[in-house]
Amino acid sequence: MQEKILDFLSKKQGYVSGDQISHRLGVTRQALWKHIQELKNLGYEIVAVPHLGYRLDSCPDRLFPYAVTRELNTHFLGKKVYYFDSVSSTMDTAMQLGMKGNPSGTLVLAESQTKGRGRLGRNWFSPKYKGIYLSLILKPRVLPARASMLTLLSAVSICEAIKEMTGIDTQIKWPNDILAGQKKLGGILTELVASVDEINFVIIGIGLNVNNDKKMLISAATSLKEQKKEFVNRITLLQELLRKIEVNYLLLEKEGSESIIEKWRRYNITLGKRVKVYCQREHIEGEAVDIDTDGGLLVRKDSGIIEKVMAGDVVHAR
Amino acid sequence: MQEKILDFLSKKQGYVSGDQISHRLGVTRQALWKHIQELKNLGYEIVAVPHLGYRLDSCPDRLFPYAVTRELNTHFLGKKVYYFDSVSSTMDTAMQLGMKGNPSGTLVLAESQTKGRGRLGRNWFSPKYKGIYLSLILKPRVLPARASMLTLLSAVSICEAIKEMTGIDTQIKWPNDILAGQKKLGGILTELVASVDEINFVIIGIGLNVNNDKKMLISAATSLKEQKKEFVNRITLLQELLRKIEVNYLLLEKEGSESIIEKWRRYNITLGKRVKVYCQREHIEGEAVDIDTDGGLLVRKDSGIIEKVMAGDVVHAR
Repeated sequence: MQEKILDFLSKKQGYVSGDQISHRLGVTRQALWKHIQELKNLGYEIVAVPHLGYRLDSCPDRLFPYAVTRELNTHFLGKKVYYFDSVSSTMDTAMQLGMKGNPSGTLVLAESQTKGRGRLGRNWFSPKYKGIYLSLILKPRVLPARASMLTLLSAVSICEAIKEMTGIDTQIKWPNDILAGQKKLGGILTELVASVDEINFVIIGIGLNVNNDKKMLISAATSLKEQKKEFVNRITLLQELLRKIEVNYLLLEKEGSESIIEKWRRYNITLGKRVKVYCQREHIEGEAVDIDTDGGLLVRKDSGIIEKVMAGDVVHAR
Repeated sequence: MQEKILDFLSKKQGYVSGDQISHRLGVTRQALWKHIQELKNLGYEIVAVPHLGYRLDSCPDRLFPYAVTRELNTHFLGKKVYYFDSVSSTMDTAMQLGMKGNPSGTLVLAESQTKGRGRLGRNWFSPKYKGIYLSLILKPRVLPARASMLTLLSAVSICEAIKEMTGIDTQIKWPNDILAGQKKLGGILTELVASVDEINFVIIGIGLNVNNDKKMLISAATSLKEQKKEFVNRITLLQELLRKIEVNYLLLEKEGSESIIEKWRRYNITLGKRVKVYCQREHIEGEAVDIDTDGGLLVRKDSGIIEKVMAGDVVHAR
């Protein structure tokens, strides 16, 4: 009912009389008043004036499922949303939900994470209401060895959504970093449950610094607010991000890896550079020449031999 | 205490007096009597004769953790055992236990499975007390792309253990079938939870027909009992299997894939054959020439081009 009231108010300019709302939504005046109080408690600014009625002045800066899915217009992404004020990590929550059989497209959102994770168990600082911290359950019909295509796909979607909603140019550093102004803006984490033959499900995790203030960021990191010098609406950005992921996901399923890799090449800053890639106990050095159809980085060593690296830490040499 | 009593009885020839047991194990005569009754209920044949004492005549045909881990002498495999009379699938149980952080080497055993699984969701018939149905949680320090090495390793271990305990020769059909007398004897299922960079954990599932009677088997399947024409002790076979897996696992960690592949080649019946491999919506045909270091099957097509298949159904053509 609260969602219906918000919908009704947000479609009207100016005041709407309580009688009108009561009548259209089939709720008593008294119940309506209670719902309005609860919405106010959630942070919705609703003005009530006797004889005029109610007016919605502003929505809170919260990623409430109602607000995120409203006019989202996706086919399967975000049809089911789990929202938390705080979790240890959206990855862990999504993993549990995936094990319980939640469908492809299920979205886990949190306003903050106490143990936000990056690659190799590294920490992702996730201060409350400042960023977008989400995990998505996906069930792509590809072999497990192709799962890293989803990291590339997510990176492209993040860059596209940010460009469209804020105008800011971002870059991708292989395998999973999103940069802006040469600083780290976001990251992607791809985990999967699979057999050798097929993927049971994949969890895509995205962490993005949105409205973090400069003084709260380490010098190697940045936020969209710092880049744009103004507050960024997290809801509309998140919605666009979900739409882009869905579009690119359907593109991957229909046309294969190359369609995503082609987009990825446009945003990336790794290819063409001299790199050192550290992977487990080894490292290789050479020129990053391309991305393989499974998401691996092709590195041409000084001997001329091209080697593929599936994962690792990249240092750009020059 | 019951385990201590069994240990004590099984180390002695003939009768052991109740007084002696009571004294050595610090248990009253009355409590001892109760424990003996409970052991009898579990299927242990214990003879009690006044003035002589107790004698252990036989142990039940059950994979009780006590019986399996006794004199197992492994370093880490089977140090933690979960035992069930019946589960839907040991894979699902082990997956849940893995998510809860159970250590590498944790063993899940069931006397029967109501939804035993093979590759691609196929059924594995798991009648009670007839086979070995287990799942192992392992945490190998290899990249996820190497997980199928564990399928090969398990296949080799099964063949080695069966040969040693029963003298029966078995063969491996890529990727995961164990055959005896050209019929299916067992299978291996490898599932993993991983990111692109590292394996969180792997679940190895093994299903093996041991004492199934011929009339209970479909014509394409066989059991060790059918092959050997006599009852096979599941406990000693399982113990040897666990030992072999541990030895091969440590070998893989120390010396790499080639050490396992070399053993695998000896037991396999796929290499050298003309094969059709069906994988998702495609299939390739040619001669199976070798196994790659990641467990993939290398097939030389008639054009001379060698292709690698990571998963699929193999039909041997001749």
